[in-house]
Amino acid sequence: MRALVVDPGLSFKADYPDPHPPNESLVRVSLAGICGTDLEITRGYMNYRGIPGHEFVGRVIQTDDAKLAGKRVVGEINAACGHCSFCHAGLGRHCAERTVLGIKGRNGTFAEYLALPSENLLIVPDSVPDEAAVFTEPLAAAYEIFEQLRIGPYKSIVVLGDGRLGAMVALAFKAEGHQPIVAGHHREKLDRLTALGLSTAVEQDLTGSYDYVVDCTGHGNGLMRAIELVKPRGTIVLKSTAAAGAALNLAPVVINEITVVGSRCGRFAPALAALESGKLDLRPLIDGTFSLEDGPRAMETATRSSNFKILLKPS
Amino acid sequence: MRALVVDPGLSFKADYPDPHPPNESLVRVSLAGICGTDLEITRGYMNYRGIPGHEFVGRVIQTDDAKLAGKRVVGEINAACGHCSFCHAGLGRHCAERTVLGIKGRNGTFAEYLALPSENLLIVPDSVPDEAAVFTEPLAAAYEIFEQLRIGPYKSIVVLGDGRLGAMVALAFKAEGHQPIVAGHHREKLDRLTALGLSTAVEQDLTGSYDYVVDCTGHGNGLMRAIELVKPRGTIVLKSTAAAGAALNLAPVVINEITVVGSRCGRFAPALAALESGKLDLRPLIDGTFSLEDGPRAMETATRSSNFKILLKPS
Repeated sequence: MRALVVDPGLSFKADYPDPHPPNESLVRVSLAGICGTDLEITRGYMNYRGIPGHEFVGRVIQTDDAKLAGKRVVGEINAACGHCSFCHAGLGRHCAERTVLGIKGRNGTFAEYLALPSENLLIVPDSVPDEAAVFTEPLAAAYEIFEQLRIGPYKSIVVLGDGRLGAMVALAFKAEGHQPIVAGHHREKLDRLTALGLSTAVEQDLTGSYDYVVDCTGHGNGLMRAIELVKPRGTIVLKSTAAAGAALNLAPVVINEITVVGSRCGRFAPALAALESGKLDLRPLIDGTFSLEDGPRAMETATRSSNFKILLKPS
Repeated sequence: MRALVVDPGLSFKADYPDPHPPNESLVRVSLAGICGTDLEITRGYMNYRGIPGHEFVGRVIQTDDAKLAGKRVVGEINAACGHCSFCHAGLGRHCAERTVLGIKGRNGTFAEYLALPSENLLIVPDSVPDEAAVFTEPLAAAYEIFEQLRIGPYKSIVVLGDGRLGAMVALAFKAEGHQPIVAGHHREKLDRLTALGLSTAVEQDLTGSYDYVVDCTGHGNGLMRAIELVKPRGTIVLKSTAAAGAALNLAPVVINEITVVGSRCGRFAPALAALESGKLDLRPLIDGTFSLEDGPRAMETATRSSNFKILLKPS
């Protein structure tokens, strides 16, 4: 099959072996999304080798589950062991033995076909087009916030970062009835988010103190800025994993009794339900769709700070 | 009056001016406790000048509140503005305009007399002796954890740090029906805590993963050790303010969806109620009681890692 492969540089392969999964479903990939993690993986993150990509919508072409046959699906990216305490608690995405689609021990979505355990697949409602369904995975990461925290009405909320994730998190907050402020550095993107009905601010100009600050900056200094902006007893949601080794002064977290909640992936069902409800439309975030052959250029385009989301169209 | 004074070194003064508080109560200090913050203040923390100390039990000798006249009292250390949103919400200890007993803009407890607003004072029940009541302030910091978090039964809990605060936090957990493990570096103190009915471990030998890890180490690296020891989706309670400028890798907080809760002072009432109930006795933590004249030696003794709690007896 045709595929993009990390080994360790990224290249297009016209003749990569098809997946032949025992006990898994085979999916023909219709659309795949490029995410910041994919860009990091091409720079060596996780020491990953193989096909990258974990956002997709596709059609099941071979399966052991009759309900899935021929269906349009999205798929949870963690394939868990099924036996440990986290798996038993329904938290397979924290299973220590898991493989992760396009990230760890399992080929990903930047290819014509992929394999996943049948229990990972969710059928996409007919009313949700491919261009919306492909956002299910990153939107689930946004909706994870509402699974972790009960955020009441009339709370003041800042989303730090006007990138892919920040935009999606802010749109999810808006869809759930909140009025977040997106704070970023890119005038053009802030204008696009304003046009989508969001309040926006240039990050350096933002003052005040807020009940919730969501760090989607992807930078190590995002947490320190969040600490400046959050109220005493307020909550910071940490979505950025880039804080590695940063010199941080966490004394204000103690003094002001701030809660910092690490937040990563989420269940797909709430995100898919939100897309089906029509209460948010992420398609305006798409900045381009490329063929697999054009994969390296697609990745390059995705690195540009003026873009929100670049898609690949494998078939 | 007799007092210990930071200016900026610590010295005993036989003739420090008595407090003459308008609109506040005057208290004769019976016992005062030395805490890590006091030691830091003598080393320059907060740039404080004046009488240090914030833990005390004493007797009201002058007051505008008839209910307090002549009573044995303890006192909340934050004197708030009474007008801001935090004050209105009953969170005066987060008021930005507050003064803090012996820490910020207000003389403290290492003296014969102190002044506090009458509303800061709580009457000590007759059944609680001075030697127990003097622990109300640090015990309130321990009970603050239960005000911030609802910790269910059968949860695994590690208290990192076998110092003053770690001991008190662990005894509070035990009093509330939990079975914490105290992990520290001081064999002698761990043995004393074992004798008080606590499970203990040498920190380096501790393995496993736990639902809750409370960082009472007072060191910048306590948080990183807590991150190693907490379960995915677990909670770290951060009691150490010493993390300033430490190089921290918080990526695991996001990846494992850990919640970090900053926790500082607490309301006195739950701590005083716990002392009155008899469900915990902190007096075995007292390692010595010194006169004010012996204050510098008392402070020196308090720095020794083999000691839990040193008291001053001003009158």
